[in-house]
Amino acid sequence: MDIQWLAEQAAEIDLQVKKKAMARQNELTKPPGSLGQLEHIAIRMAAMQANEKPVLDAARIVIFAADHGVAEEGVSAFPQAVTQQMVRNFSSGGAAISVIANTLNAHLEVVDVGVKEHPGELPGVLSHRVASGTANFCKAPAMTEHQLTQALHVGYDAAERAKSAKVDIFIGGEMGIANTTSAAAMVCAVLEAAPMLVAGPGTGLDNEGVLNKAQVIQMALKYHDGQLSEPIDVLRRVGGFEIAALTGAYLRCAQLAIPVLVDGFISSVAALLASCICPAARDWFWFGHLSAEPAHQMVLQALNAQPILQLNMRLGEASGAAMALPVMRLALDLHNKMATFSEASVSTGELT
Amino acid sequence: MDIQWLAEQAAEIDLQVKKKAMARQNELTKPPGSLGQLEHIAIRMAAMQANEKPVLDAARIVIFAADHGVAEEGVSAFPQAVTQQMVRNFSSGGAAISVIANTLNAHLEVVDVGVKEHPGELPGVLSHRVASGTANFCKAPAMTEHQLTQALHVGYDAAERAKSAKVDIFIGGEMGIANTTSAAAMVCAVLEAAPMLVAGPGTGLDNEGVLNKAQVIQMALKYHDGQLSEPIDVLRRVGGFEIAALTGAYLRCAQLAIPVLVDGFISSVAALLASCICPAARDWFWFGHLSAEPAHQMVLQALNAQPILQLNMRLGEASGAAMALPVMRLALDLHNKMATFSEASVSTGELT
Repeated sequence: MDIQWLAEQAAEIDLQVKKKAMARQNELTKPPGSLGQLEHIAIRMAAMQANEKPVLDAARIVIFAADHGVAEEGVSAFPQAVTQQMVRNFSSGGAAISVIANTLNAHLEVVDVGVKEHPGELPGVLSHRVASGTANFCKAPAMTEHQLTQALHVGYDAAERAKSAKVDIFIGGEMGIANTTSAAAMVCAVLEAAPMLVAGPGTGLDNEGVLNKAQVIQMALKYHDGQLSEPIDVLRRVGGFEIAALTGAYLRCAQLAIPVLVDGFISSVAALLASCICPAARDWFWFGHLSAEPAHQMVLQALNAQPILQLNMRLGEASGAAMALPVMRLALDLHNKMATFSEASVSTGELT
Repeated sequence: MDIQWLAEQAAEIDLQVKKKAMARQNELTKPPGSLGQLEHIAIRMAAMQANEKPVLDAARIVIFAADHGVAEEGVSAFPQAVTQQMVRNFSSGGAAISVIANTLNAHLEVVDVGVKEHPGELPGVLSHRVASGTANFCKAPAMTEHQLTQALHVGYDAAERAKSAKVDIFIGGEMGIANTTSAAAMVCAVLEAAPMLVAGPGTGLDNEGVLNKAQVIQMALKYHDGQLSEPIDVLRRVGGFEIAALTGAYLRCAQLAIPVLVDGFISSVAALLASCICPAARDWFWFGHLSAEPAHQMVLQALNAQPILQLNMRLGEASGAAMALPVMRLALDLHNKMATFSEASVSTGELT
């Protein structure tokens, strides 16, 4: 196992089909542009799927779960045991994403990449454990080089499974107590932003907690000073197993021409890292929502990304991305099923 | 037929159920507040339906269509014949709202309140014609008092039909070439705003067209000067049959305790008028999306309304509101089906 595959180029989107889809949008019985973002969704998805009438029937949601050594610095409002408890909750169908996946008829897969305590065998949960959580990155690199290679490959494998299952879209998500601290540290390193600008409340820290989190990140950046210039080093030194797995999954999806729907802050940081490693991969990413976590906006800006929804959600576990799926599906339905002006004998605008 | 019914009080929402729904949200396996707007949707809908586990299975979409005399002032990018052509398109299933309604399993009803040329009998279209379009409100009141009474009652009847059909939510929409001009004139009158601040491109006017539209509205306001202080006069003098019908439908829904999902600019102006006539009716209104029509923001602000979606749509025909339905349905699914902390044996936050 190595990381040579990271250097493979992303697939190309089909610009011919994109043109045809654009032409079709202008023939549909509506003022040109009046469906706003829905038109862009249909056109871009047509180009990705190389299909003038794209579909999103087969949606796959993959949640990567892992624990973080930095949790011992008191950076989360919830105890570390919650990571494993939520994996159980995903499995038994009680979590938000379980409910959404069920309603949307999306396939839900949970991957344990390194939850602190092994949850045992659970229905719908794959055990691809790299270790029992990362090291505390204030005092050591979060993971070894071999562990990073493994975690990236967990994502690679998830993308390959999605390809075999012929999915129309890949929706990644994460669960890991303290992972907004890891993601924030990565943002500070990649975007050269101050921890006080990037640290946010996560699952519900108060103001004192947010300030402490910023100081913890500051401490970590000092510890790793001068060694965070490469994205791969950022992932290894202050990342997490689930974030590395997401990064690997996003990259492999782009290589395999699978459209990716990115969730909130942490997932977008994985998409940012993937885009740093392979800029062309960015073409395959959709952004489901703007999270309430304040630094999400900064990450989206760096990615030149416009999120589909803005619902003030901040739950993770792919929930915000999955909420955007019905909107995207309707965008495609409109594109595929509306009548054209000539079919419906409707007059076109005089001024258009 | 009279307008005495406008004075009936709106139904009250159930504050006891609201409290129970709020308590339930805090027991679900997620950090409190992390589902953002979805939590508010579930809580508020529980209060409206007086049901701790609210549902949105039976959704009814009603499109009111009518023509506008002011179209002769050249205020639309599309010819007036398009109103009738689109009624046919709704009926035959080729319009955007037809496609969305079908996907969402929502009942679609189209009501001709006064399209210029009678479209004849069409499947799914009710003929409740007040007249063959309004008068040009630059030169006369748009409608007579009797016509206003009739148009409001067309909405009343639509709400009563919805009640008989036991719908969970009423989604109103409109079709009428030149009706953004009418709606903009109403906003100028009610919010005392300058036509140049309110007139927008509608279906696709260029800058010159928008300026002409503002001047037409200015001319109309001058013609009706001193006679637009009551909401009912605003509706009659510069309104439209479909906008009056929407206003009547929204008011009657509030009286009958039917939640209302409002669409974009024109529908929101009807909701504004309804709220002026009966402030308590506002409690029953949801706002589906922020339209690309610039003055929509101003109307939403006047209503203290936060739209669910912001997709840059500007099509009307209830399309933006209907797009919000799957988001609302998922909000209720989450509320009704997620596990509680105790059910799932998940630890609650230490700091919450």
